[in-house]
Amino acid sequence: MTPSAKPLRLHIQNLPSENPVFHVTDQIWRDACARHPALAARLDATIGWTPEDFERAISQAELLVTWTMAAKTLFPAKAPKLRLIFITSAGLDRLAPYDWLPPGCALLNNSGVHGPKAGEWGLMAILMLANRMPFHATRQREKRWDKVYGSSVAGQVLLCVGVGGMATHTIDHARAFGMHVIGVRHSPTPHEGCHRIVTTADLDSVLPEADYVLLTCPLTPATRGLVSRARLALMKPTAGLINMARGAVVDQDALCDALDAGTLGGAVLDVFVPEPLPPESRVWTTRNLLIAPHVSADDPLTYTPRSLDVFFRNLAHHLAGGPLPNAIDLARGY
Amino acid sequence: MTPSAKPLRLHIQNLPSENPVFHVTDQIWRDACARHPALAARLDATIGWTPEDFERAISQAELLVTWTMAAKTLFPAKAPKLRLIFITSAGLDRLAPYDWLPPGCALLNNSGVHGPKAGEWGLMAILMLANRMPFHATRQREKRWDKVYGSSVAGQVLLCVGVGGMATHTIDHARAFGMHVIGVRHSPTPHEGCHRIVTTADLDSVLPEADYVLLTCPLTPATRGLVSRARLALMKPTAGLINMARGAVVDQDALCDALDAGTLGGAVLDVFVPEPLPPESRVWTTRNLLIAPHVSADDPLTYTPRSLDVFFRNLAHHLAGGPLPNAIDLARGY
Repeated sequence: MTPSAKPLRLHIQNLPSENPVFHVTDQIWRDACARHPALAARLDATIGWTPEDFERAISQAELLVTWTMAAKTLFPAKAPKLRLIFITSAGLDRLAPYDWLPPGCALLNNSGVHGPKAGEWGLMAILMLANRMPFHATRQREKRWDKVYGSSVAGQVLLCVGVGGMATHTIDHARAFGMHVIGVRHSPTPHEGCHRIVTTADLDSVLPEADYVLLTCPLTPATRGLVSRARLALMKPTAGLINMARGAVVDQDALCDALDAGTLGGAVLDVFVPEPLPPESRVWTTRNLLIAPHVSADDPLTYTPRSLDVFFRNLAHHLAGGPLPNAIDLARGY
Repeated sequence: MTPSAKPLRLHIQNLPSENPVFHVTDQIWRDACARHPALAARLDATIGWTPEDFERAISQAELLVTWTMAAKTLFPAKAPKLRLIFITSAGLDRLAPYDWLPPGCALLNNSGVHGPKAGEWGLMAILMLANRMPFHATRQREKRWDKVYGSSVAGQVLLCVGVGGMATHTIDHARAFGMHVIGVRHSPTPHEGCHRIVTTADLDSVLPEADYVLLTCPLTPATRGLVSRARLALMKPTAGLINMARGAVVDQDALCDALDAGTLGGAVLDVFVPEPLPPESRVWTTRNLLIAPHVSADDPLTYTPRSLDVFFRNLAHHLAGGPLPNAIDLARGY
């Protein structure tokens, strides 16, 4: 761990077809190194854009930074020295099962990057539901003036399924507006923003209390289809649903049925099955529903720089030989 | 001013055709009296629903509480003893000119009631524009998946035209999210929430700085058409417009042109010309625009009780012979 130690070989592989928002350009990398000079001095880094760039670098690389979809197309690969893959995305469900991972190599996500932006989006969605904006948008499509009133959110109940970084920032805002917050997580570990925490097994007992249900949980075998038709029926008919997790956490068809029938108040969704939504999907025209095209947590201005900051934080732990804060538990999938 | 003083005759006139949200029912009145027992003891109150009820009461009434549209249909009337009309609305532009007002009678609005609800709505609209929700709603109508990203609002510039109760609550929230706030008002009196205050005469100089323009000013001869075609052209092409004031503050046709042409980023509007919007209005289908049917500041659960609290606060000043906090300056119109 002396400055004269042999530098670690890092390869950064971009996916040119992906939105430029997610590209690690030379400039963005240099800026990140300037923010973390001591750690950057320990690295010998290459940035690749083509499959050939990857081929050339991976046999010697000890660290890899790449985007989800790039990882999916690059592996399996001969990467005998690889010890750490950092993915610039929080939800790695699209990379499961993880049998492609080289032996002894840790897989890391960029959890923590999305919090501030996602927190604003989550609060926006709550306020939109409180103010009946999905209903008004439906009436706008029908060219009908229908004076239906919303209400302040103070005292209303926000139920958060998943209480990680994205939810935590939303919860902070919701508390500032006087909301009551119930958290649902894998284990009943307390969460400082939540008035109450229950485990996923107790979801049915708290769903009827919620004015808003916010989904930010990872998609795993345990959460696939979690918000089923039966659970939607447990919600208040005035309640609103917000999905910032993954489309498959919800029975999408049952949700559309409930919204069209008016047995659920409204929904603001950022994630769907499938993505992109095909033109023939019923989701586009479902009543009392407003959609965003899977953009809630991403801030183009800050996304990639913040991701690299998370990488450097984990690199410090890696160099110190300690556990990596962003390492995925491959059995749980997050 | 002793308890044995002759009670003041108060008449409360409802408009049965108006939304029940705005009705002062017996129960709501009794609850309000219970919150202000000393003041209520000074009153001899009647509640009317029909024109006959009004006729019967008004010749003796010293105080009148009524809804905007009721006032419009009830006057001129023989009301020789009337000293105070309290309207359960903040914008009294629809009652101008005020030549119908009995001589020596003060006209009061319910300014102060709308703040908390309007503040949540204003922040919602800012976050919707930051997250491109009007754009996404346009794409939803077109059934097109178009991954366009929004951004966090920290550091962005909110320009508030009008810095009364509605704006002040929005400004408090915007500041909590790290926004920079410029206020525009009639006179350059400082406003504690604004980083900078300019007068309406300097509007053109600050419009190009704004990421969001929030309109909450009263509609007066000075503000009619204030956001003209020329001023819309001064705004950033990425900027968003929020109108919670009155439709006629904006050149609505010019706004629709700018939104359809993409020379303005988006708009979230609660007020229009005319209201209700007729089915043939181009507003319904204008791109990058989401609308609400003039409901932003009204909270059915709290609106009428809070209005009556404002009435009682003014009643206390009236009994003490002092100036009335909610009295309209008839020359300015607010």
